[in-house]
Amino acid sequence: MTQLPLADVLPISASVNDAGRLAINGLDVRDIVEEFGSPLYLFDESTIREMCREFVGNFRRHYPKTDIEYSTKAMSNPAILKIIEQEGLHIDVVTGGELAFALAANFPAEKINFHGNNKVRSELREAVEAGIGRITIDSFHEIELLNEVAGELGTTQDVNLRVSPSIDPHTHRLTSTGVLDSKFGFSIETGDAEKAVAAALAQPNLDVQGLHFHLGSPLFELEPYEEAIEYVCAFAARMKWVHHLELNEFSPGGGMAIGYLSSKLPPTIAEYAQTISESLVSACTKYGLDQPRMIIEPGRSIVGRAGVAVYSVGGIKRIPGVRTYVSVDGGMGDNIRPALYEAEYEVMSVDDPLGEPTQKVTIAGKFCESGDLLAKDVELPDVKTDDLLALPASGAYCVPMASNYNLQTRPAIVLVTEQSEARLIRRRETYADLLATAIFE
Amino acid sequence: MTQLPLADVLPISASVNDAGRLAINGLDVRDIVEEFGSPLYLFDESTIREMCREFVGNFRRHYPKTDIEYSTKAMSNPAILKIIEQEGLHIDVVTGGELAFALAANFPAEKINFHGNNKVRSELREAVEAGIGRITIDSFHEIELLNEVAGELGTTQDVNLRVSPSIDPHTHRLTSTGVLDSKFGFSIETGDAEKAVAAALAQPNLDVQGLHFHLGSPLFELEPYEEAIEYVCAFAARMKWVHHLELNEFSPGGGMAIGYLSSKLPPTIAEYAQTISESLVSACTKYGLDQPRMIIEPGRSIVGRAGVAVYSVGGIKRIPGVRTYVSVDGGMGDNIRPALYEAEYEVMSVDDPLGEPTQKVTIAGKFCESGDLLAKDVELPDVKTDDLLALPASGAYCVPMASNYNLQTRPAIVLVTEQSEARLIRRRETYADLLATAIFE
Repeated sequence: MTQLPLADVLPISASVNDAGRLAINGLDVRDIVEEFGSPLYLFDESTIREMCREFVGNFRRHYPKTDIEYSTKAMSNPAILKIIEQEGLHIDVVTGGELAFALAANFPAEKINFHGNNKVRSELREAVEAGIGRITIDSFHEIELLNEVAGELGTTQDVNLRVSPSIDPHTHRLTSTGVLDSKFGFSIETGDAEKAVAAALAQPNLDVQGLHFHLGSPLFELEPYEEAIEYVCAFAARMKWVHHLELNEFSPGGGMAIGYLSSKLPPTIAEYAQTISESLVSACTKYGLDQPRMIIEPGRSIVGRAGVAVYSVGGIKRIPGVRTYVSVDGGMGDNIRPALYEAEYEVMSVDDPLGEPTQKVTIAGKFCESGDLLAKDVELPDVKTDDLLALPASGAYCVPMASNYNLQTRPAIVLVTEQSEARLIRRRETYADLLATAIFE
Repeated sequence: MTQLPLADVLPISASVNDAGRLAINGLDVRDIVEEFGSPLYLFDESTIREMCREFVGNFRRHYPKTDIEYSTKAMSNPAILKIIEQEGLHIDVVTGGELAFALAANFPAEKINFHGNNKVRSELREAVEAGIGRITIDSFHEIELLNEVAGELGTTQDVNLRVSPSIDPHTHRLTSTGVLDSKFGFSIETGDAEKAVAAALAQPNLDVQGLHFHLGSPLFELEPYEEAIEYVCAFAARMKWVHHLELNEFSPGGGMAIGYLSSKLPPTIAEYAQTISESLVSACTKYGLDQPRMIIEPGRSIVGRAGVAVYSVGGIKRIPGVRTYVSVDGGMGDNIRPALYEAEYEVMSVDDPLGEPTQKVTIAGKFCESGDLLAKDVELPDVKTDDLLALPASGAYCVPMASNYNLQTRPAIVLVTEQSEARLIRRRETYADLLATAIFE
C-alpha cells in the first residue's frame, strides 16, 4: 500500500484506496459523505480504542494503581462513551448537561467525576442524587455548598480538592490553568489550599479522597508534570502531617498534546506515562507517602486523532500575489479553534490525497466573518468546486464548541466502526432545530 | 431620579428603582431573573425601536432614497424581527437557516437580502423559491450557480455584486472584511470586480441592481466610509461606461460601532448618516451617476445596546496581590467575544448599581477553560454569592455565537416591552435539547 501523507495526524485506520481516495478503515470517505452529507465529522472507532489502550497499558505498566478518566468535554456522544466504558475508562464531566448526557448514555455514575470552577447548586444536587463517584471541589463556596447539598440528601460525598501549583505549562494563555493567576483551584502558594484541606476535612458530609491539579492543555513538554507532581506531593505530605489528610487519590490532570501538524508531534503516551508515573513514585518515596490511586484525565488525546472533519469546496478566489481563498461549506461555526486559539490544521484532498502540491491556499469557511478561516496557506494539489477536503485531528473541541452562528445547522457525525460500517451517531441539525427554543406568538 | 452610571451603554429605558436596583423600563431586573432564571439575556423593546428610528430618520433626512436593512446575524428572534418589520426595515440573512428563521417569523421575502461568501446550491434554491428580494453575489462560482438555479426555477433573480475596495477600516483583524486580502467580494483592484460585472450582466437569469461593499465591524471612524464610497462610485461609473451597468442600488454595508465601554463611544448615528450620505451625493455628482437607492445594513447598532446579560455570582477567589476572580453561572458559552476578540465589557451590580467601587475584580465564567473570562479587572462595589451582575451592550453577537460547550444549556431571552411586560421570547435550553441530535442505540 502506498505510504499515506499526514499518516501521523490521521486516524490509524486511514489509507488510500484503489480509487486513489482517502479511506477510513477501508471505507471511502467520499462515499460516506455522499450518504450522510457535507460537512461531516467522521470518528474512527479503532483509533479511539487504540488510544484508550495506550493510556491504560502504558500507565498501568509503570504505575498499576492508575485509572484513566476521559474528559467528556473534549467530545461527548453516546456511541463514543460506550467505547470508552468498554475500554474500562472512567469519565469526568464539568456541567449538569454533561452529567445528564453521560447518564442518558448509561455510563455508570460511580465512575464519573464532576469538575468545574463554578458548579451551581442544582448541578451538585443532580450529581449527588445520581450517586456520582467523585466531585472535585474548586472553591471555598463549593465546600460549603456541597456539604449542605449532601447533608440535605442524607449522604456523604467522596470528593477531591483541586489545587493550583503555580506552574506555567507553556501553552496558549487561554488554556493555561495551573498558574497562580487562574480562576481554577486552591492556590498552594497563597495558603488557600491548606485552608481548603482543613475546611473540607471538617465537613460532616464530605469525604476527602485526595488532590487534583491540572496544568493546561495541550502540553508538549514533560517537565511541567514532573515539577508539579513533586510540588503537590510535598504539599500532600505536609497536609498529612498537619491535618491528617489521607492521600488515597492523586490526579495530575490531563492536558496531553496531540499532533495537529505533522511537523509538530507531541511526546508518545508511553513517554507521558513514564515521566508522570516515575515522578509520582519518586515523590511518594521522598515524602513518605503511600502510593495513592492515580487518576489520569485525557480528553483531547483520546479522541482528537480519531476525528476528521470533511468539507465540500465551493467558490475559489485568487488574489494574485496575495492569497488564494478556497471556501468550504463549514467553518468557525463547527470549528472555532483557528479563530479562538490560532490553532493550525493540516488539510488533505479527499479525492487526491497523494497529489503533489501545486499551490498554497487558505481554507475559508462560509460564516460571515473575515476570521472564519480553517487553515492558512496550506499546500494542496489542484482543487475545484465540489472536491472534498479533510481536516485531520478534528476529534476534540470542535463539535463540543460548535455554535449556530449565522443560524448554520451543526454537522452530522458518523462513526466508522471496527467492522467497517459507517454509523450515524449524531444527526445533522435541521432548520426546525434552530427554531426549537424561539417563541412564536 | 438619580443619574445612572453607565447610562450610555445600557438600554435607554434603564434606571435605578426605589429598591435601589437596576430596572429596565421600570421592571426590576432581579424580579425578572427570579421569574425566568439565570443567566438571562434581556432585550429592551424601546431601545430597538429607538435605534431603528435613528437610522431611518437620520439617513432619510440626508438621503431620502435610503432603506435600512437589519443584519439578522447580529441577533435573530421572531419577536425582534417583528419589531424590525414594524419599524419599516428590511433584513439580510447569510445562511439558509437565517432565511428559514425569518420566513418562519413571517418576514416578507421581498424585503430580504441574502449575503455570504459561500452560499451552497440548496440555500440559493430555497432563497429563489421563497421569492427573496435580493441576493448579493460574492464569487464567480456563485454567478454561475445562481444563474443556473434561477433558470431551473424559471425565474430571474435581482442581485447585487459584493465588491472589495481594499480599504483598511482599523478594526480587529478577525472582522476587517473590505481589505484586499479578504475572502469576501470581488476585488476592484485586481480587476475581478469588472470581470464579475461583465459576467453577471451576461447571465440570462440574473438582473444586476447594483453594488455592495462592507468594510468590517465595528468601525469607530468615519473616513473609511468616505474613502470607500468615492472609490466604489468611481468604479460604478466606469462600469456604466464600459458595461452599461445601471447602478440602481448602492450599499456601503454596515459596521457602525456601539459603545461597549463608557470611555469609548462611537460617532452618533447622525454623524454616520451625514458622512455616508454626503459622500454618496458628492461621488454621484462627481462621476455623473444618478443617485441610486442606498441600502444601509446595521446589525450590532440596532440591537447591541438593547441587550443586557445578567449572571448570578457563585464562588469568589481572592489571590492576594494578583487578582480576585468572581465566578458567574454563564461565560464563554453564551458570550465568546471576550475570548475571541478580546472584547471588553462594563459590569454593573444589579443589586447595587449606584454603589461606590471598593475593589477590582475579574468576572470568570463557569466553563472549563482559563480563557473563560467575561471582563478583566473591572471596578465593582462589594459583591457576594447570589448577587446579580449585568453586562450591558450584550445584544449583538452573544446569543448568535453561543455554543453548548461543556454541554451547557443556552440561556433564556426575555423582551421588556414598551408596555413594561417581561415576555419570554426564547426559552432556556433543557438537557433534553442537548440530547436531541445524539443517536442512542
